[in-house]
Amino acid sequence: VNLERLFFPESLALIGASNNPSKWGFRILKNILNGGYQGNIYPVNPKGEEILGIQAVKRVIDIPDKIDVALICVPAGKTCEAIKDCARKRAKFAVVIPAGYKETGEKGRAEENLLVEAANSGGVRLIGPNTMGIMSTHAYLYAYMSAARPFPGGVAFVSQSGNLGTQILGKGEKEGIGFSYFVSSGNEADLKSEDFIHFFGRDKKSRVILAYIEGLSDGRRFLEIAKEVTTQKPLIVYKAGRTPAGARAASSHSGAMASSDIVCRSAFAQAGIIGASNTEELLDFAKAFSRLPLPKGNRVAILTWGGGWGVVASDVCQEMGLEVPALPSSALKKLNRLLPSYWPQSNPVDLVGTLELDRHLECLKALASENAFDAILTLGTITGFSDFRQHDEKFMNGLLELINEYQKPILAVKLFEEYQSEYLIKNGSLLYSSPEHAIKALAMLCKYVRYKNRVG
Amino acid sequence: VNLERLFFPESLALIGASNNPSKWGFRILKNILNGGYQGNIYPVNPKGEEILGIQAVKRVIDIPDKIDVALICVPAGKTCEAIKDCARKRAKFAVVIPAGYKETGEKGRAEENLLVEAANSGGVRLIGPNTMGIMSTHAYLYAYMSAARPFPGGVAFVSQSGNLGTQILGKGEKEGIGFSYFVSSGNEADLKSEDFIHFFGRDKKSRVILAYIEGLSDGRRFLEIAKEVTTQKPLIVYKAGRTPAGARAASSHSGAMASSDIVCRSAFAQAGIIGASNTEELLDFAKAFSRLPLPKGNRVAILTWGGGWGVVASDVCQEMGLEVPALPSSALKKLNRLLPSYWPQSNPVDLVGTLELDRHLECLKALASENAFDAILTLGTITGFSDFRQHDEKFMNGLLELINEYQKPILAVKLFEEYQSEYLIKNGSLLYSSPEHAIKALAMLCKYVRYKNRVG
Repeated sequence: VNLERLFFPESLALIGASNNPSKWGFRILKNILNGGYQGNIYPVNPKGEEILGIQAVKRVIDIPDKIDVALICVPAGKTCEAIKDCARKRAKFAVVIPAGYKETGEKGRAEENLLVEAANSGGVRLIGPNTMGIMSTHAYLYAYMSAARPFPGGVAFVSQSGNLGTQILGKGEKEGIGFSYFVSSGNEADLKSEDFIHFFGRDKKSRVILAYIEGLSDGRRFLEIAKEVTTQKPLIVYKAGRTPAGARAASSHSGAMASSDIVCRSAFAQAGIIGASNTEELLDFAKAFSRLPLPKGNRVAILTWGGGWGVVASDVCQEMGLEVPALPSSALKKLNRLLPSYWPQSNPVDLVGTLELDRHLECLKALASENAFDAILTLGTITGFSDFRQHDEKFMNGLLELINEYQKPILAVKLFEEYQSEYLIKNGSLLYSSPEHAIKALAMLCKYVRYKNRVG
Repeated sequence: VNLERLFFPESLALIGASNNPSKWGFRILKNILNGGYQGNIYPVNPKGEEILGIQAVKRVIDIPDKIDVALICVPAGKTCEAIKDCARKRAKFAVVIPAGYKETGEKGRAEENLLVEAANSGGVRLIGPNTMGIMSTHAYLYAYMSAARPFPGGVAFVSQSGNLGTQILGKGEKEGIGFSYFVSSGNEADLKSEDFIHFFGRDKKSRVILAYIEGLSDGRRFLEIAKEVTTQKPLIVYKAGRTPAGARAASSHSGAMASSDIVCRSAFAQAGIIGASNTEELLDFAKAFSRLPLPKGNRVAILTWGGGWGVVASDVCQEMGLEVPALPSSALKKLNRLLPSYWPQSNPVDLVGTLELDRHLECLKALASENAFDAILTLGTITGFSDFRQHDEKFMNGLLELINEYQKPILAVKLFEEYQSEYLIKNGSLLYSSPEHAIKALAMLCKYVRYKNRVG
């Protein structure tokens, strides 16, 4: 399915547009207007009143323009009629917000099928129902209820939960992750997660794909598409409903069918999918994949301003299959010139509390330039302390230069949060809040490289 | 060892006090003065100058007062002489800041032994060397270099890494965790982690004990003390140096000896120790144990404003051995009166996006009052959205009342961070940033209850 016009629509209809601020038909229209979307917007409302400064039409068929995307915010009882109008209008896509379908049982499922029939008869493809909407940053399109406004970037995200998805977007925004698209796929009566993943896979603006999945109606097709996509770019999936308790909850949430966790895991791995084992990992992994070069191997140098964190990081590296090799003599020589005589002469490189902050970056450079290391972790050298703000930004700047010069991933762990810095937030996607988070992300970069090498 | 006078000293000497702001002897004294410590403070400096407004003496033996605690901030070469003076003065404790001892190899180890001999000959007990200092909130004593100022509370913390320990204190402060004591035990040449744990175990102000351990010089004694302590209160341990890479790093950091991870784990479990598997869990578990009543069983009700999070939470509950049982008919009846007809009638209780915010707390109450549940998780009902700030605080208030009324743990997950609220931070120890963090903490409460029931 070509989704170009879904994410870059020339015209939008908002069916169920409203002047009541507690209605979806108000908040979504407001978000679209605030977001800066440049195409034509047509509110549709039975009274034909003026809404947020735009004259509404009474029915979508009254719009004197073609419609690429119709957003449907009317109550469930009126949805089918609205979709029939969209079919008459030959709208390309309809995003169906209301809930109350497959997730409520057999009756809802039958009604959901009617929606799809009505849509497809006129060539309309459906998103949802039970969706929270879509986002396309490069089109300045924020067609959802959420207040999240992530900046444009390379992460595409499809989520079977709108709430969870938009909350993750909001967290991603705070962590400086740039997104290309978001779609809350809802009950997936027509378009499925794999349709979006397929599009993201071929899309030049998307560098990494995230998916929150509760269930798959056609697992084979999903895996075929995943297998093709993962040769091009990483696909990171959080699979919920892994346990009987979770599967019960999923069935009453998005109407998803249970699937065996073990089958899922091994099939996912074979298709080159990177599994996230919790929701934080979705963002942790997206950070690393969207901004860092891939490592050539798994040999890690650790730089730490605080010996304890070096111990923690060494443990986690080894547990995640990463090597922490000894320092080559060339690195020892360079570091001996930079550090006090009592530094431990080993990897992790402990800065032994040195307050000569310029040395920190020089030490990082000494490590990044060594062929013995494929990746670098630097802990606490971006401090997050207000007193060291200037140092922090200088260090980040140097770190970006080193990544660029040596084409190796360098992951920084900032252990404090005393101040906010625009510059650091913009580059926040290189910053992790604990060694564990950073190291797991690095391990996934290595895993993906191994997969790519294996499948050629 | 009675450590009362270490944490509640009537008089302090600061040997190596300095007017140079980049020296430990300046920063620690400044922290002590700013913190509001009420006892006598004696700076000691070879020049006998005035430091931060206090007249220094040249040697500790010149002080016209007894000394409970001497903080030693002179360079390593002058430390032994300073300790000999403390011995002459019959100081009770000496906190030895400088590094360069056991962690650097055999020569350092021999010098460290000399420190202990010098100290013990005069009845002085040593903390360190290679320590970052101590904190005792109830004495307003912040005798370390860190800027962390956690408020007084029930969490006692001993850490073999000063840096990691104080950074965890700083995070704890932001998350609203109250601490009683902190000690950076350093190389543990004399007083060991278990000595502090023993004191914390009998201390009325401490409700839960945290420990960061890289190595144990007397594992048997540690376990004996742990076993006694865990019958009284929870002891949460993060053991670093679990892998060969980590053990190597530990040896050059605190001079800790390697120990087999498997032996450690099973011995810890037998002694009733709660293991933290990463540094975040230390705080997650401390939160729950320091503020919540212990659950009677493992049956969890989940309230969620967003269905996807309910699915995630159900999975994690089951994976952590917690039950998510069906709703009893009494609860269904109450909830049917509160929620729109299309709510899924199951546990997790999905608030199906309802914007009638007062209903959220009523639903929480309906669940908390049921005998069918031992604990409650509430997800997203404290939103973190600026628009809902008033609601959030009202909900938190109600939540505290319900914990008190029903004596059940209620853990809240706040998924957004739009605003800061003094009130919420103060009660931040009931708030988690993801379902996974909250559920693991709840599982540890259950685990500890089972242990206590088993050992009687």
